[in-house]
Amino acid sequence: MAIKVSIIGATGYTGSELVRILYRHPEVELVSLTTRSYIGMQMREVYPHLFKYNYLTCEEADLAKIFDISDVVFIALPHGHAMPVALEAARYGKKVIDLGADFRFSDYQVYEKWYKVNHQAKELLPEAVYALPEINREEIKGAWLIANPGCYPTSAILALAPLLGEGLIDTGSIVVDSKSGVSGAGRGLSLGSHFSEVNENFRAYNVAAHRHTPEIEQELSRIAGEQITITFTPHLLPITRGILSTVYAKLSSDAGVEQLRELYREYYKNEFFVRVLPDGTLPQTKWVAGTNHCDIGLTVDKRTGRAIVITAIDNVVKGASGQAVQNMNIICELPEDTALAGPGLYP
Amino acid sequence: MAIKVSIIGATGYTGSELVRILYRHPEVELVSLTTRSYIGMQMREVYPHLFKYNYLTCEEADLAKIFDISDVVFIALPHGHAMPVALEAARYGKKVIDLGADFRFSDYQVYEKWYKVNHQAKELLPEAVYALPEINREEIKGAWLIANPGCYPTSAILALAPLLGEGLIDTGSIVVDSKSGVSGAGRGLSLGSHFSEVNENFRAYNVAAHRHTPEIEQELSRIAGEQITITFTPHLLPITRGILSTVYAKLSSDAGVEQLRELYREYYKNEFFVRVLPDGTLPQTKWVAGTNHCDIGLTVDKRTGRAIVITAIDNVVKGASGQAVQNMNIICELPEDTALAGPGLYP
Amino acid sequence: MAIKVSIIGATGYTGSELVRILYRHPEVELVSLTTRSYIGMQMREVYPHLFKYNYLTCEEADLAKIFDISDVVFIALPHGHAMPVALEAARYGKKVIDLGADFRFSDYQVYEKWYKVNHQAKELLPEAVYALPEINREEIKGAWLIANPGCYPTSAILALAPLLGEGLIDTGSIVVDSKSGVSGAGRGLSLGSHFSEVNENFRAYNVAAHRHTPEIEQELSRIAGEQITITFTPHLLPITRGILSTVYAKLSSDAGVEQLRELYREYYKNEFFVRVLPDGTLPQTKWVAGTNHCDIGLTVDKRTGRAIVITAIDNVVKGASGQAVQNMNIICELPEDTALAGPGLYP
Amino acid sequence: MAIKVSIIGATGYTGSELVRILYRHPEVELVSLTTRSYIGMQMREVYPHLFKYNYLTCEEADLAKIFDISDVVFIALPHGHAMPVALEAARYGKKVIDLGADFRFSDYQVYEKWYKVNHQAKELLPEAVYALPEINREEIKGAWLIANPGCYPTSAILALAPLLGEGLIDTGSIVVDSKSGVSGAGRGLSLGSHFSEVNENFRAYNVAAHRHTPEIEQELSRIAGEQITITFTPHLLPITRGILSTVYAKLSSDAGVEQLRELYREYYKNEFFVRVLPDGTLPQTKWVAGTNHCDIGLTVDKRTGRAIVITAIDNVVKGASGQAVQNMNIICELPEDTALAGPGLYP
Repeated sequence: MAIKVSIIGATGYTGSELVRILYRHPEVELVSLTTRSYIGMQMREVYPHLFKYNYLTCEEADLAKIFDISDVVFIALPHGHAMPVALEAARYGKKVIDLGADFRFSDYQVYEKWYKVNHQAKELLPEAVYALPEINREEIKGAWLIANPGCYPTSAILALAPLLGEGLIDTGSIVVDSKSGVSGAGRGLSLGSHFSEVNENFRAYNVAAHRHTPEIEQELSRIAGEQITITFTPHLLPITRGILSTVYAKLSSDAGVEQLRELYREYYKNEFFVRVLPDGTLPQTKWVAGTNHCDIGLTVDKRTGRAIVITAIDNVVKGASGQAVQNMNIICELPEDTALAGPGLYP
Repeated sequence: MAIKVSIIGATGYTGSELVRILYRHPEVELVSLTTRSYIGMQMREVYPHLFKYNYLTCEEADLAKIFDISDVVFIALPHGHAMPVALEAARYGKKVIDLGADFRFSDYQVYEKWYKVNHQAKELLPEAVYALPEINREEIKGAWLIANPGCYPTSAILALAPLLGEGLIDTGSIVVDSKSGVSGAGRGLSLGSHFSEVNENFRAYNVAAHRHTPEIEQELSRIAGEQITITFTPHLLPITRGILSTVYAKLSSDAGVEQLRELYREYYKNEFFVRVLPDGTLPQTKWVAGTNHCDIGLTVDKRTGRAIVITAIDNVVKGASGQAVQNMNIICELPEDTALAGPGLYP
Repeated sequence: MAIKVSIIGATGYTGSELVRILYRHPEVELVSLTTRSYIGMQMREVYPHLFKYNYLTCEEADLAKIFDISDVVFIALPHGHAMPVALEAARYGKKVIDLGADFRFSDYQVYEKWYKVNHQAKELLPEAVYALPEINREEIKGAWLIANPGCYPTSAILALAPLLGEGLIDTGSIVVDSKSGVSGAGRGLSLGSHFSEVNENFRAYNVAAHRHTPEIEQELSRIAGEQITITFTPHLLPITRGILSTVYAKLSSDAGVEQLRELYREYYKNEFFVRVLPDGTLPQTKWVAGTNHCDIGLTVDKRTGRAIVITAIDNVVKGASGQAVQNMNIICELPEDTALAGPGLYP
Repeated sequence: MAIKVSIIGATGYTGSELVRILYRHPEVELVSLTTRSYIGMQMREVYPHLFKYNYLTCEEADLAKIFDISDVVFIALPHGHAMPVALEAARYGKKVIDLGADFRFSDYQVYEKWYKVNHQAKELLPEAVYALPEINREEIKGAWLIANPGCYPTSAILALAPLLGEGLIDTGSIVVDSKSGVSGAGRGLSLGSHFSEVNENFRAYNVAAHRHTPEIEQELSRIAGEQITITFTPHLLPITRGILSTVYAKLSSDAGVEQLRELYREYYKNEFFVRVLPDGTLPQTKWVAGTNHCDIGLTVDKRTGRAIVITAIDNVVKGASGQAVQNMNIICELPEDTALAGPGLYP
């Protein structure tokens, strides 16, 4: 019997991407799509690439009705809006997967400090799981409140986990230099996403002040077993999809690149979605566009003793909606790659 | 039992796209990939987006061996190179689908004039079928030598077929103004595909002289039952995938846009891959990127009595490899949308 | 003594482009910049590419003050907002150059019909000059109320003027298929200019309904001496700057391409900003980016008897601010290319 | 009397950019352009954006003839080809400005190791000046053999000079993460510059192995007065022009961002081409496109004690041809900004 799924906030980019991915899911039936901006319009009118693939009408969110008819609810809303939904889910005993930040922090004060919002569902935090399957799959199984990771954190944590897990680097030396496509900023209008301002242009933003910093640090600290502080710099690429993170760390041993590659291969040997690239091959965002993969390339700068780890993901898929479906598959005890396997579009 | 498939010329863009599409095909087993430039390399080394999805090594073409082990052979070579392959296929009694121009013209002299090549397999032309399924599906069924249409012709013929079929336009008034992404020029290096020359730029090329002109005219003439001559202007868009054709023709009746839309809806009512868009919605190349769809938008310029029909396709899919798989499905008596259904990537 | 110049609406793209161009103008002193959105900010804060080049603060428009201190006032406002400014200019006896549509139509009813705005300064229309210098320079000299042409009309009229002037084409056969960069839509936010919606995408818009249609027709009719009706289709290119128009018309004689090129060379022989390209060379938008040039390429489709004329301009320069400065030079009796000569940026 | 200037290798991107810039130079007369690929063609045929601006024909290089008629010769050739030209210049007692790497290294062994070429003019190295005017203008004055800096080094050295000059950072902690547009790879064809491979894509390349590394280190060591070793990672942006470098270094004092900005302002206070941006404003490549400026933005990551310095230049101008003209102005005792001042094109 099909799993009945609803999406709250279906008309943003992560919402419409969920619709795209779930179309291929043999076990899922989409039962409700909600919106604030396009109430009463069919989803395929809002996103004509869905013509012939989706016939639902976007509705105003009626939580009671939604939890009544749904087994799993995806929340694709801006931060601050998932808390009431999760509270309602708890009442109904239903599973929710939140693509925003509301349940990513085990310490609500960190959330409140960086997001400038009061946390209205602190009591649920102990039950929420930060759900990066390649790192903590076991915790995810059985959870009902899934905090889907941010896009930059996914790319940074997967880059550093093997090194930190093995204690191979000077933990004070980590620099994460990330570059993201514009879709990460969503469909909301702003000068920073205006075509003529972004096209044929490149810039950094929120340097040393981006909200994904504490999220990365929380997870790296958990892996390392000590408090990790990093420098994180996001940049805006004139492309639609893709994040490439170039991660620098001083090696505390004299491990060579082949040893590191072996370590990464071992660490991710059972992970279908992580592809550790061979010697001489570095990740490109386009190789993962439209896929749930995280490609990893490795170099050692022998002259300075630094490891340089480069990861590429599609920010809308592995950085958001694809990972959310991966998490749904886990909590619903389905094969983890259902609806997610397959090569991307190249060129 | 799986259909055994080989691709001759697998390392160009249409070849690698066939590999991508056929990965999802439940009835196909890829048995051989040939190349001239990458002999001995694995396909996934040539195209790393295929990591985890393909483990074949690219080989020099050995036709005897290939036809020995294959049921269907795709030819993804430049024009002029498919003729010897087709002759060999005839000897082996195997099916071939040629993505190039060698078998598109019923009159070999037209081919020789426009392509400046002698036709070396004229005897096969009567058996070759120009295979645009939405137009001549019945002919395709049962054929063994499939001439897969060109990208521009696909976009132009689907735009004009309903009008010509009904005799609604002045046949001397047709102008096809087409704009294509750069992938249509293939992976071969040229200044015209050099990033710095194409990016943030736009131009026409081969005006009134493009080789797709006689191909469009041959098929339009067949549909209209009279000799059609058109003006065709291709342009180069600074995008990778997509063709948008804006087609102009004087209406010979006073049909309004709603009547035309009704005509198109009726004409394509059983065609899954053609999407006639509703009033007020015009095609966008990105809505079909990565898909086998052809989107059609319609307007009537009442002030001048012209119909304006706009079509959008992905030149690598519906304009090449996707349509080739669609044709394979037809000649192999499989559901026509196998491996081809599903929404594209947006944004 | 310097000409004192103000710009009303300086913080849009055409306004900031005027500042860029006028920086190189040896006879101009910028005295006032007005804005609605950035009152009190320095121009170089709004547009940091102007750092080191402009030190003015953007102010709310105070017309009395502006006309008091200015010799020439550029109006870079949305249509409908130039009329009160022009009325004030008349009172002060100052020159104004309006980059919008308010004074482009000799018949105010055409304006009101297409722009859905009441004309509030009809009495000034007889004094306004539609100012495309290559077509009607003599009228511009001595005028005080300059209606600067629209971007698409500039590209279309320069393409067709020689043919219509000589009566060489069937006037009912004209199709103008234009493609524009996104900057033409200005700096105002809209989904249609949102990066992720435009990038790697292409589409037509306002087909057979764009407001530039009657403007093109008015000027073509004036040149032809008869009422001209055209089909005009604008498209949106994923580039920032540039318009390429592909113009089709049935030749009424059997003129060959060399005769046409000779005609165009003769017609534009004294025009520095028009470059009639040699045989085999077709315009590219990037060749004119940042310049006031209009490049023209010509072909004849002998099979169908059509002339195909292709023009390329920078929509922000020759299509707006550059042409406005060209007009200022004319009415101020300065060399017409002052601040405007020089090759563009390539690649 | 005009300075007579020739360009050896005029038909590459840096050569054509010299032609563009020198068109505006009131003291320069271009007397000869050489080429290997386009012998006998006019420069404006090779680069049609130069129509109306240049009438020279590209010739095969005849050094004797060129030095006979030239006062200054620009060398815009791949590395390894400038050495014989410089030797000839020495014989004629003429000035040369080499845009390549042949004379950038004071230690020829470093050059030979990284560039895999034997140095054939070692005897000239003591007379060659590494010519980054903002750093060593005094040395440049009076020199005849100018080694014009590389594009990445220009962006990295200007970022770090003030910090190193004042001894404010831990010199072992420097990471330079640079991102460049594709024009930096020149006009030569390669898969890495093929539109469909670069567009909507992003990647690192030559990680910890790029030839600009020792060049950056040589100059930083000179400034610091000690041997500096850095980690340098170049990336390829899907834009044509622009380099943005994000530079990380641990502060050895507890200087705040305002102190750093003050330091940079003081350090560059007489430098017209360096623009230290105000608080809260970070560089964007498009703000400097087409200009000789280097924009600098500063942040301090207080949590980790790192300074983050971001620079943006146009790789073809300040990173190559513009800086070459700046150096020519210096050695010819002309105002340094001649032909180089003026805002860039935005948007």
